[in-house]
Amino acid sequence: MAPTRWGFVSAGKICNDFKVALDTLPKDEHQVVAVAARSLESAQKFAKTHDIPRAYGSYAELAAQEDIDVVYIGNIHSQHAPVTTMMLQAGKPVLCEKPMSVNSREARQMIGLAKEKNLFIMEAVWSRYFPAYKKIRDIIDSGAVGEVKVVTACFGFKVGDVPRLRERLQSPSVIINYSNYCMSFAAMVFEGEEPQDITTSGHLSDGGDDQTVTVVLKYSGNRMATLLCCLSANMANEAYVYGTKAYLKIPNFWCPTEVIAPDGTHQFPLPPPEKPLNFVNSTGMRFEAMEVRRCLQEGLTESPLMTHAMSLQIAGILDQARTVVGVVSDQDKE
Amino acid sequence: MAPTRWGFVSAGKICNDFKVALDTLPKDEHQVVAVAARSLESAQKFAKTHDIPRAYGSYAELAAQEDIDVVYIGNIHSQHAPVTTMMLQAGKPVLCEKPMSVNSREARQMIGLAKEKNLFIMEAVWSRYFPAYKKIRDIIDSGAVGEVKVVTACFGFKVGDVPRLRERLQSPSVIINYSNYCMSFAAMVFEGEEPQDITTSGHLSDGGDDQTVTVVLKYSGNRMATLLCCLSANMANEAYVYGTKAYLKIPNFWCPTEVIAPDGTHQFPLPPPEKPLNFVNSTGMRFEAMEVRRCLQEGLTESPLMTHAMSLQIAGILDQARTVVGVVSDQDKE
Repeated sequence: MAPTRWGFVSAGKICNDFKVALDTLPKDEHQVVAVAARSLESAQKFAKTHDIPRAYGSYAELAAQEDIDVVYIGNIHSQHAPVTTMMLQAGKPVLCEKPMSVNSREARQMIGLAKEKNLFIMEAVWSRYFPAYKKIRDIIDSGAVGEVKVVTACFGFKVGDVPRLRERLQSPSVIINYSNYCMSFAAMVFEGEEPQDITTSGHLSDGGDDQTVTVVLKYSGNRMATLLCCLSANMANEAYVYGTKAYLKIPNFWCPTEVIAPDGTHQFPLPPPEKPLNFVNSTGMRFEAMEVRRCLQEGLTESPLMTHAMSLQIAGILDQARTVVGVVSDQDKE
Repeated sequence: MAPTRWGFVSAGKICNDFKVALDTLPKDEHQVVAVAARSLESAQKFAKTHDIPRAYGSYAELAAQEDIDVVYIGNIHSQHAPVTTMMLQAGKPVLCEKPMSVNSREARQMIGLAKEKNLFIMEAVWSRYFPAYKKIRDIIDSGAVGEVKVVTACFGFKVGDVPRLRERLQSPSVIINYSNYCMSFAAMVFEGEEPQDITTSGHLSDGGDDQTVTVVLKYSGNRMATLLCCLSANMANEAYVYGTKAYLKIPNFWCPTEVIAPDGTHQFPLPPPEKPLNFVNSTGMRFEAMEVRRCLQEGLTESPLMTHAMSLQIAGILDQARTVVGVVSDQDKE
């Protein structure tokens, strides 16, 4: 089988980590052939650090390359939609960082274009491909926790503790920036079922950004997900799956290396990085890369684990949550 | 100082545990002089087990006794209001189990009558008097966690796992039966501040009872409490206090023996019980008993830690939550 040839959009922190994750996979399966950034200098520096053959100072140049099998979109989220659109128009399959868009309208347009072009597109919800998530699913399906009644997840990193996050974020909205992980965890447990009701409580600061939000999703059969995100405090960052017989605890649930279950703690160690990482457990991005390769090889236009429907469902929930709290993005006005 | 002479209303499980807790205190400070139950046989059996001098087959007989300094109301919550009223009318100070009432109207009437009679009344939120709660307050006040931004608490015990709970509860409402602990934890952290907004999400079963509920309280300054209770699954039963600098974790937050803080884990072991207990850590009820004695000795009609205002605030939040979910009690119709 030929290697999967990646083109990178952006030379930022998450791109660094994704490249380091790809480097934990066989070189004859994954290669990064080019990187593009808004500044040629940044792209060249990134290419040099990561031993990537070509660097471009514009995304359009990357889009024009013939030898790219899939583009990884790792720039700021407000630019996901326009750059993904450019790549799809150029016939390139896309793995787009989460959140794939600022609102569901953008997500719908991106997915619609990919379908029209018969191209693969996937929101880079890396969590879904972790072996620990497979284990969670297996334990639930085995009946070991009984009927799942409640899911909880909290995700909080103080902006001040994440270097340059506040400056980097065009809109420092906790709903846009942080909620995706909690939502996609609930979507995984409840297998993409549409919530029957969405209840949101959040604060809007004087600056128009939301720092803390709780979103409660009600599902059929008296089931509930209580999801909490915060930009102003570091949180325990755990998820729980509560069943009628027992419960699962998942520390670092968005990139877990262990699942604490009734029968003990299941460990899923990650390969060590060969270069410094910017974020927690980033070599675990290898699993989504493996899934992208598998989908491309099998001619799939979406991954069965993180489907288009699931991305649209989550984007819709985030839209509704933002409406309740009163968070408006420039993209909403277009 | 003379001993505080207690009269017990009910010979049930919680009364057993409170008596065992009192037995961990000096005999010249706390004595149970009489117990009353709806059945004389039950009262006599309880009196024999616990070495209590007198037993009565009606609460009215207990109310008529002259040598009782305070009555402990430990019967089912739907009977708290009428029996507390009977005791206050008879001039007896009251420690009433939580929830002190089914709705805020009853709580208001009970507290109003106590004020009119100039008698002590306190809702038995035993948690508030644990040394661990004092430690939590001290840590927050020291600034060690920074500005508190978020409080979370979850409390879930599967009804099937609590012997006879479902039969014992007239209304198996999770809001009425379980929410008080979470609410009073948030009230402690936020020092009784009135929430600016209350958001509730809960399920109503076909039988008209609510099994899972999330209540989100929004406070001034972008602060929030996310509180989750469940009757259909056992939960982690932890509380967190998230600040801008660090967070506190409190396992078994309603009767905690440890506080996990930035500077380590603070332990507050409880005295061992001399007789079997029905519930977790029940010898910790000793601390509320000590507070009742202190208040009576100092002529206080309410405890400064669990004030009447706080009981009314919590009862009001529970009323609102029940209204949203659609849980109606017989008492609401009176």
